[in-house]
Amino acid sequence: MKRLMLAAAVALAAAPAFADEGMWTLDNLPVKQLSERYKFKPSKSWVEHVRLSSVRFNDGGSGAFVSPEGLLITNHHVALGQLQKVSTAERDFVKDGFYARTREAEMKCPDLEVNVLQSMANVTKRVLKAVDSSQPEKVQNEQRKGEMARIEKESMEKTGLRSDVVELYHGGEYWLYRFKKYTDLRLVMAPEMQTAFYGGDPDNFTFPRHDLDVAFFRAYEDGKPAPVKHWFKWSADGAKEGDLVFVTGHPGRTDRLKTLAELVIERDAVLPYLLKQYKRRVLALKAYALTGPEEDRRAKDRIFSFENTIKAFTGQLEGLQSQKLMAQKSAEEKALRDKTLGDKKLSARYGDVWEKLASTAVEYGRRHKEYLARQRMAGTKLPEFAATIVRYVAEVQKPNDKRYEEFRDSALESLNLRLFSPAPIYGDFEEAVLADALAFAKDELGESDPWVKAALDGKAPAKQAAALISGSKLSDAAVRKALVDGGVQAVEASTDPLIVWARAIDPHYRELRKWYEDNIQASRAIQGKRLASARFAVYGKGTYPDATFTLRLSYGKVAGYGEGTTLVPYKTNFGGMYARGAAFDYKPPFNVMPRVLEAQGKIDPATPLDFVSTNDIIGGNSGSPVLNRDAEYVGLIFDGNIQSLVWRYAFTDEQGRAIAVHSKGILESLKTIYGMKSLADELTAAPRL
Amino acid sequence: MKRLMLAAAVALAAAPAFADEGMWTLDNLPVKQLSERYKFKPSKSWVEHVRLSSVRFNDGGSGAFVSPEGLLITNHHVALGQLQKVSTAERDFVKDGFYARTREAEMKCPDLEVNVLQSMANVTKRVLKAVDSSQPEKVQNEQRKGEMARIEKESMEKTGLRSDVVELYHGGEYWLYRFKKYTDLRLVMAPEMQTAFYGGDPDNFTFPRHDLDVAFFRAYEDGKPAPVKHWFKWSADGAKEGDLVFVTGHPGRTDRLKTLAELVIERDAVLPYLLKQYKRRVLALKAYALTGPEEDRRAKDRIFSFENTIKAFTGQLEGLQSQKLMAQKSAEEKALRDKTLGDKKLSARYGDVWEKLASTAVEYGRRHKEYLARQRMAGTKLPEFAATIVRYVAEVQKPNDKRYEEFRDSALESLNLRLFSPAPIYGDFEEAVLADALAFAKDELGESDPWVKAALDGKAPAKQAAALISGSKLSDAAVRKALVDGGVQAVEASTDPLIVWARAIDPHYRELRKWYEDNIQASRAIQGKRLASARFAVYGKGTYPDATFTLRLSYGKVAGYGEGTTLVPYKTNFGGMYARGAAFDYKPPFNVMPRVLEAQGKIDPATPLDFVSTNDIIGGNSGSPVLNRDAEYVGLIFDGNIQSLVWRYAFTDEQGRAIAVHSKGILESLKTIYGMKSLADELTAAPRL
Repeated sequence: MKRLMLAAAVALAAAPAFADEGMWTLDNLPVKQLSERYKFKPSKSWVEHVRLSSVRFNDGGSGAFVSPEGLLITNHHVALGQLQKVSTAERDFVKDGFYARTREAEMKCPDLEVNVLQSMANVTKRVLKAVDSSQPEKVQNEQRKGEMARIEKESMEKTGLRSDVVELYHGGEYWLYRFKKYTDLRLVMAPEMQTAFYGGDPDNFTFPRHDLDVAFFRAYEDGKPAPVKHWFKWSADGAKEGDLVFVTGHPGRTDRLKTLAELVIERDAVLPYLLKQYKRRVLALKAYALTGPEEDRRAKDRIFSFENTIKAFTGQLEGLQSQKLMAQKSAEEKALRDKTLGDKKLSARYGDVWEKLASTAVEYGRRHKEYLARQRMAGTKLPEFAATIVRYVAEVQKPNDKRYEEFRDSALESLNLRLFSPAPIYGDFEEAVLADALAFAKDELGESDPWVKAALDGKAPAKQAAALISGSKLSDAAVRKALVDGGVQAVEASTDPLIVWARAIDPHYRELRKWYEDNIQASRAIQGKRLASARFAVYGKGTYPDATFTLRLSYGKVAGYGEGTTLVPYKTNFGGMYARGAAFDYKPPFNVMPRVLEAQGKIDPATPLDFVSTNDIIGGNSGSPVLNRDAEYVGLIFDGNIQSLVWRYAFTDEQGRAIAVHSKGILESLKTIYGMKSLADELTAAPRL
Repeated sequence: MKRLMLAAAVALAAAPAFADEGMWTLDNLPVKQLSERYKFKPSKSWVEHVRLSSVRFNDGGSGAFVSPEGLLITNHHVALGQLQKVSTAERDFVKDGFYARTREAEMKCPDLEVNVLQSMANVTKRVLKAVDSSQPEKVQNEQRKGEMARIEKESMEKTGLRSDVVELYHGGEYWLYRFKKYTDLRLVMAPEMQTAFYGGDPDNFTFPRHDLDVAFFRAYEDGKPAPVKHWFKWSADGAKEGDLVFVTGHPGRTDRLKTLAELVIERDAVLPYLLKQYKRRVLALKAYALTGPEEDRRAKDRIFSFENTIKAFTGQLEGLQSQKLMAQKSAEEKALRDKTLGDKKLSARYGDVWEKLASTAVEYGRRHKEYLARQRMAGTKLPEFAATIVRYVAEVQKPNDKRYEEFRDSALESLNLRLFSPAPIYGDFEEAVLADALAFAKDELGESDPWVKAALDGKAPAKQAAALISGSKLSDAAVRKALVDGGVQAVEASTDPLIVWARAIDPHYRELRKWYEDNIQASRAIQGKRLASARFAVYGKGTYPDATFTLRLSYGKVAGYGEGTTLVPYKTNFGGMYARGAAFDYKPPFNVMPRVLEAQGKIDPATPLDFVSTNDIIGGNSGSPVLNRDAEYVGLIFDGNIQSLVWRYAFTDEQGRAIAVHSKGILESLKTIYGMKSLADELTAAPRL
């Protein structure tokens, strides 16, 4: 009977009314649900403490302070990019791990930035006041973005803090988020990738799982460990079955509020196209990695990341292809639409919003391949740098509120950190990736596509990639900096083949971006605002916005689940990890690293390693803290299970689970496997808040 | 991508041409496949040794000799019935296990019989010669069965051996199988049921699995351990990944050669009806078990067995409901039919066989509910005994070749062993089961059904069950024996309410059995023979017959498989068992028995416990030995995984696997957990064949 239930679950049962759903902004927590279901009332100081102890990693993840001396914890796979950048053929910190046993040994990261959210202010009224709704959407969009730029600039000048105006509810609300920024981050500890990512690609997105996906950094200020007032105390017990737990972090993107028409384009055009691209790219990377051990090392983090993406997209696509999900979405949309059309005032104001968003979706579907090809060259650093430099010098000549948003004054510091990073760049790797990107664009868009024509310049993709990369000096950060500093004149005069190339494709990029901003972005923001207003009018604000890589809190409980006819436990332990290795005769990806194997006799095999909870998370939550009622640190989010992939579109906790490393497992491995007693002491000796 | 493959597999991909398929009779081994794929050629003496070391457990399983002193190994769940019968409220061997540390402590089983196949002779010609094919099917069937009875009787009188004429290929062949019979079996060792059936119902039919599903018996002759010439040597290494392995044993039933029309009746009528019955019965048993700890003990083995059956039927039904399987079956049938109809001679001989079997299937579907209700009263001992006694005395008055086959002279000794067993019978348990069986029959067939009318005698089911059981003396084996010995006269004169009841329902039973034999059995045998002849004519005899609880050999290899996006290892180990217990905080059914937990520090956690292989098995193979090329004992079959349930209708080894206990795990637990050194020594000290 349970098997039949599984089938139903895969087809996605409607989330039960009591599901612990939601990625809540900290100004609008689900106080009623928490109080009714868990008899928990977050105090103002609890919320503030949680906010100021939570950290955004701008490499694309989340994290937390866990000591008053600026100690930060996140996932190994969030740290992976930095680990790769400080590794060389001789010293491979990805493979061997990194262990700073003294403060002096802590190693500076080339281009990492983390942010801590200091304040949140609702600026919806001000943004909307700047928009003249009698104007065409395109003009409204310019007014809207101009005002956002002005608010950011004013705030930065006034406070010195990083200031972002964030758009929530697809334009329903605008908030000014101010961040304290740390850019001197040093690596403290990372285990071997094989230990962090135990079970490799087969076990990815599954549970039971046995990963020690953890890394420690330390924030520095003025060359010293940054003193912080807010950090999470390490829990002595960790998470137990049935516990109420919270996750703070920065979920990247959900599309739960999108209309049916938008989901259909996603399902039938965008996701299949992206999957095709990533699958091809990962094959190209693997072919490159096969050419030697150093090549394998260079490609490792990108292969890891692409395989992860492919699985996530596959799960999301299967969700959209399930009749049950689409029926649920359709019923939800119909309910809101019927209520809107049934009310004279609402109908007059918002009645046509679904049609407008549907025609925007169709328009996007018409050019999405071109847009994605010109917008991103997945995984190619040097070509991205070249294109960015060409745009950079042109954009900064414009007034701040007329620029592309990534070149606004408020964004330049973070951009410079990335653009002028001293991290090594490998020409042969860049060439392999660019060759595949060009070949894919050619195959998909055809040789006569103007961007493809400009990008290939009459050559075969592999030839063109070789010519561009081998002749370029852009892998030197100083060269890149000199070009930006030299402005339009220097860039115009440059004969670097990549700069010449970037100048050639730039008009095509700008043409399509203009199409996107005027036709797609404008409509999504203007109509999105109207749809949000209709939703607020009908349902009130007892809901949460789609994820936008801004700070959110989710709540849930520690719980196993049924799968097939059997049960998946809520946690795993070290004994299970050793057992899984032995069951595969330690064949990769189930080999156990020597120092981990040596510790087998010393670690109680029942020590928890990973656990699952019903917290609502998504990509971007990697590295998020899991907290108990006392805001103590009980776990470290690093994944969702396969059944959670559909959460991009709808939440259900029948089987979907967030996966975390258990706080006890982290502590035990620091002490017994890695001999990092002082780091363990720093976690546990920290005085209580 | 792997997820999509899973979906395809569940929908049942056609078995690839190289699958290690087949439950082969020992006269017709797949010599060509073994030689081509595995470079293995079974010698005549290898086959003889394997046959004479393999044992059939007439409680419904398989087993093997593993020492020259008559030591037998099988599954705990095959031994469960006997364990239950020797247990009492005070001494619960099911819960606590049984450990004979001396020969004297070995405990006699009340009614166990095991058989060893001594010889096999093809008697197809003789049986068919007795059949006059110009006669109606009904007469042919009587002639056929009469001749089978004569062959058996002659053989038994000549050799003193148990002699069965077995029907293979649904009537395509008849073989005389002669067995040496052991009826003095003594229990040597059985672990606690919780250890044998670790993970309980949720883990049933799954893998990874951590069961020590083992029990040892010893065959006695003349009060002494039976000396045997053939037994399996215990392998020092056990099974390793990729090894070619063999399974001998007695698969109970497959329906791979059935026609589409027959499968449709199975899918739409028989299986759903049986499932309904078992699901209801298991609820009734659980309700009874809840009334007290002793009641729980009494019902345990029956609940276990019914839950097992429900899962198996559910898996089989899902198989039949899968479009892919039915498409495959349809294509196979079409190919054979087209070839038959395309050949003038074959077409004239066999062309109408599919239509004939289809109309028989429809006829069976018309009365299958009545037939099943009257034929078996699932799980009721006393009513079955009463009905058997009434039939017994009547049947043995007839000439041997006119009796129901279960009352032929050649079958009486085995029947008496069961019927006069001293095993305890619990009236309250019998009453609970009978009440539900009567209520189910009433609900399904209606009060006006003649059998229901006779069985209820105007009373409500629960009242009637109480009256019949509480007033009966049949739980005393001596009373049963006296009735049989007293013959028709004694039975006619009996006022025991169950005997009175059995007399009342007997005519209805006989009426329906006659309908079944004349209309269903006759056609299945006569048309089955024609279908088999068509198949032999088109494809030759490079195939194997459907399972019939006769000795078979299957071959395969030790191999894990993919499930979802991840990999299932080919084996589990003790560390994994302890880890699974700890992951569930040792909550039932994942609690670990105290003496097993005490051994944790002493057993190498990497010691293999269970493993999987691609061997083709089905229910009845429980307790089968797994053998390596040298016919050494490497494992003990105890289950198939969920993906193997469909093997009743078609074999595929994409994910389907047989599950066995590893020989190393058995040895290690005897030595380290149970302190049974002398038993371990008997296994390993046995001199090499």
